[in-house]
Amino acid sequence: MINGIKVNDRALRWGMVGGGGTSQIGYIHRSAALRDGNFLLQAGAFDIDAARGRAFGVALGLDPARCYGDYETMFAAEAARAEGIEAVSIATPNNTHFAICRAALNAGLHVVCEKPLCFTVAEAHELEQLCAEKQKIIGVTYGYAGHQLIQQAREMIAEGLLGEIRIVNMQFAHGFHHNAVEQQSASTKWRVDPRFVGPSYVLGDLATHPLFIAETMLPQLKIKRLLCSRQSFVKSRAPLEDNAFVMMEYDNGAVGTLWASAVNCGSMHGQKIRIIGDKASLEWWDEQPNQLRYEVQGEPVQILERGMGYLHPGALADDRIGGGHTEGLFDAWSNLYRRFALAMAATDRGDRDFLKTFWYPDVHAGLMGVRWVEQCVQSADAGAIWVNC
Amino acid sequence: MINGIKVNDRALRWGMVGGGGTSQIGYIHRSAALRDGNFLLQAGAFDIDAARGRAFGVALGLDPARCYGDYETMFAAEAARAEGIEAVSIATPNNTHFAICRAALNAGLHVVCEKPLCFTVAEAHELEQLCAEKQKIIGVTYGYAGHQLIQQAREMIAEGLLGEIRIVNMQFAHGFHHNAVEQQSASTKWRVDPRFVGPSYVLGDLATHPLFIAETMLPQLKIKRLLCSRQSFVKSRAPLEDNAFVMMEYDNGAVGTLWASAVNCGSMHGQKIRIIGDKASLEWWDEQPNQLRYEVQGEPVQILERGMGYLHPGALADDRIGGGHTEGLFDAWSNLYRRFALAMAATDRGDRDFLKTFWYPDVHAGLMGVRWVEQCVQSADAGAIWVNC
Amino acid sequence: MINGIKVNDRALRWGMVGGGGTSQIGYIHRSAALRDGNFLLQAGAFDIDAARGRAFGVALGLDPARCYGDYETMFAAEAARAEGIEAVSIATPNNTHFAICRAALNAGLHVVCEKPLCFTVAEAHELEQLCAEKQKIIGVTYGYAGHQLIQQAREMIAEGLLGEIRIVNMQFAHGFHHNAVEQQSASTKWRVDPRFVGPSYVLGDLATHPLFIAETMLPQLKIKRLLCSRQSFVKSRAPLEDNAFVMMEYDNGAVGTLWASAVNCGSMHGQKIRIIGDKASLEWWDEQPNQLRYEVQGEPVQILERGMGYLHPGALADDRIGGGHTEGLFDAWSNLYRRFALAMAATDRGDRDFLKTFWYPDVHAGLMGVRWVEQCVQSADAGAIWVNC
Amino acid sequence: MINGIKVNDRALRWGMVGGGGTSQIGYIHRSAALRDGNFLLQAGAFDIDAARGRAFGVALGLDPARCYGDYETMFAAEAARAEGIEAVSIATPNNTHFAICRAALNAGLHVVCEKPLCFTVAEAHELEQLCAEKQKIIGVTYGYAGHQLIQQAREMIAEGLLGEIRIVNMQFAHGFHHNAVEQQSASTKWRVDPRFVGPSYVLGDLATHPLFIAETMLPQLKIKRLLCSRQSFVKSRAPLEDNAFVMMEYDNGAVGTLWASAVNCGSMHGQKIRIIGDKASLEWWDEQPNQLRYEVQGEPVQILERGMGYLHPGALADDRIGGGHTEGLFDAWSNLYRRFALAMAATDRGDRDFLKTFWYPDVHAGLMGVRWVEQCVQSADAGAIWVNC
Repeated sequence: MINGIKVNDRALRWGMVGGGGTSQIGYIHRSAALRDGNFLLQAGAFDIDAARGRAFGVALGLDPARCYGDYETMFAAEAARAEGIEAVSIATPNNTHFAICRAALNAGLHVVCEKPLCFTVAEAHELEQLCAEKQKIIGVTYGYAGHQLIQQAREMIAEGLLGEIRIVNMQFAHGFHHNAVEQQSASTKWRVDPRFVGPSYVLGDLATHPLFIAETMLPQLKIKRLLCSRQSFVKSRAPLEDNAFVMMEYDNGAVGTLWASAVNCGSMHGQKIRIIGDKASLEWWDEQPNQLRYEVQGEPVQILERGMGYLHPGALADDRIGGGHTEGLFDAWSNLYRRFALAMAATDRGDRDFLKTFWYPDVHAGLMGVRWVEQCVQSADAGAIWVNC
Repeated sequence: MINGIKVNDRALRWGMVGGGGTSQIGYIHRSAALRDGNFLLQAGAFDIDAARGRAFGVALGLDPARCYGDYETMFAAEAARAEGIEAVSIATPNNTHFAICRAALNAGLHVVCEKPLCFTVAEAHELEQLCAEKQKIIGVTYGYAGHQLIQQAREMIAEGLLGEIRIVNMQFAHGFHHNAVEQQSASTKWRVDPRFVGPSYVLGDLATHPLFIAETMLPQLKIKRLLCSRQSFVKSRAPLEDNAFVMMEYDNGAVGTLWASAVNCGSMHGQKIRIIGDKASLEWWDEQPNQLRYEVQGEPVQILERGMGYLHPGALADDRIGGGHTEGLFDAWSNLYRRFALAMAATDRGDRDFLKTFWYPDVHAGLMGVRWVEQCVQSADAGAIWVNC
Repeated sequence: MINGIKVNDRALRWGMVGGGGTSQIGYIHRSAALRDGNFLLQAGAFDIDAARGRAFGVALGLDPARCYGDYETMFAAEAARAEGIEAVSIATPNNTHFAICRAALNAGLHVVCEKPLCFTVAEAHELEQLCAEKQKIIGVTYGYAGHQLIQQAREMIAEGLLGEIRIVNMQFAHGFHHNAVEQQSASTKWRVDPRFVGPSYVLGDLATHPLFIAETMLPQLKIKRLLCSRQSFVKSRAPLEDNAFVMMEYDNGAVGTLWASAVNCGSMHGQKIRIIGDKASLEWWDEQPNQLRYEVQGEPVQILERGMGYLHPGALADDRIGGGHTEGLFDAWSNLYRRFALAMAATDRGDRDFLKTFWYPDVHAGLMGVRWVEQCVQSADAGAIWVNC
Repeated sequence: MINGIKVNDRALRWGMVGGGGTSQIGYIHRSAALRDGNFLLQAGAFDIDAARGRAFGVALGLDPARCYGDYETMFAAEAARAEGIEAVSIATPNNTHFAICRAALNAGLHVVCEKPLCFTVAEAHELEQLCAEKQKIIGVTYGYAGHQLIQQAREMIAEGLLGEIRIVNMQFAHGFHHNAVEQQSASTKWRVDPRFVGPSYVLGDLATHPLFIAETMLPQLKIKRLLCSRQSFVKSRAPLEDNAFVMMEYDNGAVGTLWASAVNCGSMHGQKIRIIGDKASLEWWDEQPNQLRYEVQGEPVQILERGMGYLHPGALADDRIGGGHTEGLFDAWSNLYRRFALAMAATDRGDRDFLKTFWYPDVHAGLMGVRWVEQCVQSADAGAIWVNC
């Protein structure tokens, strides 16, 4: 059980780009990274307004000299220090991810980046190559994937409990943007502006979450072709969609569907994934993440609970408190950052054996998400036709 | 509140074709029709085996002389009686529905028929015309539609509580036929044999249920085009599908999805419908039919309960017992048969005003279902392409 | 599977006292009794207003000559007929149950009576003796007990799946009478008037339901002593309680609690029973009666579904439609009336073997309920002290 | 929204007694205290084994010189430092709480202590007086009370939305100790040993949690008398109980019940609280802590969600991430430690106005819990009789 002792022999020196002020996403990065001694926050370029960013860093207890006005300055200055940062997290608007990731890798840093990693497959490939070249990792914050029961599902499927996989149903469909809230809300405004988010809204912002969870549960599954229909129910959002349906065919004969929406009135998140095999199904819902439904055809439905002794050791490895107690999204993110710390250290020591069997949302997962969104947009914009993957 | 007193001035004389022995569907027809004095069971051709059918009818208390070996004989003999049957219910395999319906209408009978009404749009049109000509009705047993909260949803939508309709999500996805159970089960065998069920399995058998519920809730909505992907996960069922996904576009700009499956391991029924407007959503689930979720964006979710004073009068008209008590599928069917009795009597007395504002699953609904299945099959068999409706 | 064929070789000739007009309870009696051909409604004294009662009976299709102005006349007249009624159901206010039951038994009739059977243990004993003497039964309509999963629980407990029973938690706590609704509602008014309901309100009206379910699930359990605290939150109801808590100690060392309330705001029914053994627990809730939770300590919770092949044969004997479909309270009552028909016929033919192993809510169950209420009132009125049972 | 910036102008210097190694409770203290910069961990006497404790502290990054072998040494040594600790958290077995709390207060420290604070009311009074004298606080870790929707309930009740309070139902009933697991489990062993836990097991360990939540929601309510029945279903635990029921009468005429159990097989936690007024009810469940049911009689049930704009500002003050996202027990504890930090600073600066309107589980709450347990044990041991409070 996790008890707050760092996983590596020492903490990684860590900085942030973005995520200052009341940024929700910045807070969750810090909360997760700093929780168990695996990272030490030592530098930051927290804000586009340099003074505000410095004030924020100081309030967090940083050395003012290491609160920078922009990321280029930070990367250069930290690289020049004897004990400069070794890793950086990027919590800036989407359109800046690619450039900052590239700069960070070039500065010899490990990276944790918000999804989407970038806007095009070409960019993603460039980052993937750069990671290989620099021997650094990018971790992508598909935060929900840190929930322990995702790991449980992965192990149950690997063990064959579901039989041959036939159907994968995914959705992330909330209702918070059912009307043009962006006219009042700055935090929504950039999400529906192609200059900041690229070619899609809900496909990139929401759909890639359950998509990555499915990849985690089903590492072997490959999409063969897909078809996407997208809508802009709030018309001013066009060409960005606020609702989309995707059908997928996998190369083993399985089929998948994904529904992403920001106009699903009344739904809080609606992020669900259901994996159906020829023997049994598994279903997980991010709003009640401590439960996993296991439904064997012809038997009573079973509800598995986080933290219980009957789970796989892998699902208990990230446990912080016994069954019955609730863990939430912050705990899932903590688990993810723990994985990032382990992967960074293993990469630094060149431990290929460890990395071969260890999963985390890596640069390749980031690439997969970018490619999938690109193909969905291509399909939708051609009239919702099938596109080979 | 319904109290067992018949809705018309007298009970209709009623017979059955099929539904003998341990037929589940036959029992639910009788249970619903006979419950409140609206129908009197007086004749039947219950079984393909004449002797067994007669024995069954006698066990039900029928005059043996009115237990027939086949429907043709029954229709002729009853027509010749002074007080012969006026209505007949058809609970036979699907491939016989069309011929029996036609014969019944030609014999001057009102009809209640299991879905699907027939296999082709041409047949459905013929039945629709025959109904008009003979001034008789066909009621189609979309039994779930009799649940009172369906009516509540219809009225809330008509009142504008959801705003403009954007998305309709439908599903009926159980797991009972996850493997080739038809090799052991006679009652499943005919369902996966095209000779008995026509061009589809789950599209016709399952999908048309939530489709009709959607039509009931949203009488104005028209499908403009659709796309269907279907699979035969149990290979011996091909070309009949045991799983299908359908995307729809409606003429008002709304979009819809429907998932039908018999291989959704562990699911009991999974029949759900969610209607999403620009203000609020409604969601109903046939396994918990006494509750209706009403989700206004930005407000706490509300759970409406059957039988409560805050419901619309229309949703209370079919109430048999106050809120908190459970009604089930038999009660929903009873409500449907009550509607059939009202529609038959109104038709007999030529009461067009009544019929104009009164809904029940009529011959046109039957036709809509047949057409929709036909178009889905056409789409799927052409590679899951869009088909105009 | 039940298919509408009567359980005995012929239907029992049956009458009703009370339950006319829009009486909810009268309708559920008729709906259950008449459903499957086990009873034929042939006579009635439906209403305290003779003309209204006659009109009602005629509307139900009865011979006007057998629609009586009062039960005494009915019992006498029917006894004088060659083919008079053999059984009668009593759906009148509580204060009349005892006299009508006694009269019915004396007239040689089987009886189905609403609970409470009577107001005092002395009366209940008298009825029990009269049953023995006249070789007739009284069935008490603890309608919820007809739900199939109650039987399933009974069999699982008998099989030892729960281990030694330690705790029995019962509740029936709705909110419909949170304020003095009786000032407007005639159907509530008599329920809170001691002249009509005897010494208690919610103890007799509500608590006896889960109490009987517990007796059905746990036929061996005997209460050793109890303590009851009762309140009249709506003051005008005093001395009748609208809320009560009861603690019980059983002779095997187990303990129980029961909460009955009519002021549990917002709750629809809240009738739940949870049985806890040293290995596992079972929990059933009348608002979702098609599910039974089976919770083995240290294993995932299992949700058993009505109508599934993994249930005990006894729980499938009353099945009317397969798993996934919903059955509701009317179906539970139908099961109960089916039991009454079987018990009446077995009693008439003197079949002691059958009766020895067959359960239904009989006169003794009625007596148990009356005694329990009496002891609760005694405890409460003495200041909520322990009373030996 | 909380963003990781400390609530006071500087962090409090903080130490721990106990909670080393794999202690779950130690980890949750550190995780909560250190999360947002309000406390700095600088010293510890983590373990009864001094060497092991020192190794643990060093692993956490502490100065080895400030890792002590026992709390007396720590308090003395830290008091002697210029910048010694100002606050200490106590996560040791229950029998040591009193002595360590007293020593800490006498050393001029603020205290955070696990419940129960001590074993007798006399001890609790002594601590309360010592707090007043030393002008230091004790915070008691009723961790669940930090969930935001508890605050929401408190404000809704204060606003009168429930009307007059009538009934308070509380329970904390899990199944993890259904048999003598203490024979194998060291972490359970001390919990059922009176030398370590005092006069009760589940009353003190479990029941005081929902009791404190009720006090938080209903600060005005005072218990007038109570009655407790307790059992030792695992006989070797006697005289300590593993199951207990408590009835309470409040001075405003309301009544309460509480069920505490460690033998409720299959239940994960079962910590629930339901408050019933004459207009509406509220219900909260610690296993799904992000939802609060609000049930107005005669209206559809409403489900309030954490983090939503329709909540009271007080319930949003502790928000760390918007609605839909899950917060868990660690977040609730973080909220509690935030309250402790605020209360410590306000006490240090003598800010009585702040403290008058600010709640946290303080020494008085600790006293209330100890007294309540004492009275329950007194009642139970006298045969489950009423005891005045």
